[in-house]
Amino acid sequence: MTENKEKTTIVLFSGELDKAIAAFIIANGAAAYDHEVTVFFTFWGLNTLRKDGQVAGVKKGLLEKAFGWMMPRGPEKLGLSKMNFGGMGPKMIKHVMKKHNALSLPQLIELAQEQGVRLVACTMTMDLLGLQEQELLDGIEYAGVAAYLGDAADAKVNLFV
Amino acid sequence: MTENKEKTTIVLFSGELDKAIAAFIIANGAAAYDHEVTVFFTFWGLNTLRKDGQVAGVKKGLLEKAFGWMMPRGPEKLGLSKMNFGGMGPKMIKHVMKKHNALSLPQLIELAQEQGVRLVACTMTMDLLGLQEQELLDGIEYAGVAAYLGDAADAKVNLFV
Amino acid sequence: MTENKEKTTIVLFSGELDKAIAAFIIANGAAAYDHEVTVFFTFWGLNTLRKDGQVAGVKKGLLEKAFGWMMPRGPEKLGLSKMNFGGMGPKMIKHVMKKHNALSLPQLIELAQEQGVRLVACTMTMDLLGLQEQELLDGIEYAGVAAYLGDAADAKVNLFV
Repeated sequence: MTENKEKTTIVLFSGELDKAIAAFIIANGAAAYDHEVTVFFTFWGLNTLRKDGQVAGVKKGLLEKAFGWMMPRGPEKLGLSKMNFGGMGPKMIKHVMKKHNALSLPQLIELAQEQGVRLVACTMTMDLLGLQEQELLDGIEYAGVAAYLGDAADAKVNLFV
Repeated sequence: MTENKEKTTIVLFSGELDKAIAAFIIANGAAAYDHEVTVFFTFWGLNTLRKDGQVAGVKKGLLEKAFGWMMPRGPEKLGLSKMNFGGMGPKMIKHVMKKHNALSLPQLIELAQEQGVRLVACTMTMDLLGLQEQELLDGIEYAGVAAYLGDAADAKVNLFV
Repeated sequence: MTENKEKTTIVLFSGELDKAIAAFIIANGAAAYDHEVTVFFTFWGLNTLRKDGQVAGVKKGLLEKAFGWMMPRGPEKLGLSKMNFGGMGPKMIKHVMKKHNALSLPQLIELAQEQGVRLVACTMTMDLLGLQEQELLDGIEYAGVAAYLGDAADAKVNLFV
């Protein structure tokens, strides 16, 4: 029974490494506190969920292909919101995180899934950006803004990242 | 009587097309769920409410004129927070939104007003950026941070976009 | 006894002047409304708390020195999230704020401390960015994400800036 659990929802709109790390640290912390946590991925935030490399069997129109090429494929490819320096910034951050034994973003995502954090991809922006289910991480959910609002209205903590 | 309605507030601080679309999709969704919704526009978010083109009868100092020239005039002129590519990005997003029959930002704003979403311009940042009431959309409200906090303290969902 | 006070928490993730001003205006407003307010500074938001200039007695590794050099030292050095123009934007904003008798960011921070707003630096990101306690403002607290979540779960208003 989860009905008495406190709830936390996070909209991950941004597609940057630092913001995704912050969102997943909060999500994992709330889950460790026994909150029921939902992260709703929309717009550039969806790139956090992309699989690395080309996914077989995906057919796209020209514009969808263009978006697919231009957007980062998964957590290892995200840039920083500040001090990106053409990719040097993310390397520095990853280096110091490893040095301090902090979990990397892919590990934070895995931990979130293990802890039962619900990762929900926004179907409307998937359509707009031409992202298909087989391009995204396994084990996630798909829903629209109505489902997010249903969760948010019940939650104690709601954040837009 | 609206006293028993749930409340949602959104601070729209950012002045980008993608964030404004996300804010208005959430606002309209919450209104459709019968929430009482307030969007509080501050800093660059105020540009979402600007009328297109020069507005007659507005007198400004030099610095206010400069801000007026540099900031986008209304929802059709906003850039993207990512992949703006000197204006190509917004064109691509508008194209795919039209193709998928998604409402455009001006339509989302109109729908919000029809649904009774309160659009509130932050008077303090209007002063700072030299924006005057006749430059902004008709039918909006004007208030300071105290009014926003009054709404937010009553609301179930509070987001900063 | 503060147990019956309403609570507001703000995560200040961003390291930009405009966002920091917005966060502190909301924080001070909520404190004036007698809310118990906590601002949790993480990632680039920590730069808002940095002391100006070199701090004596701080020893750092090479990468930590690099972060220290590249990141802005305190509220006077922050850029804008939009229209930064290599530092011209912040000058313009500071000029119009002064003209309108609006409090500057350093004054807003001081007011927050006077009003009892708790300023909490995220120890995990301090470690990552190599920031040490003596480099940050006096009178602040140090804590991890668990402490933030404890406050947020009790709060009526939670924002991520």
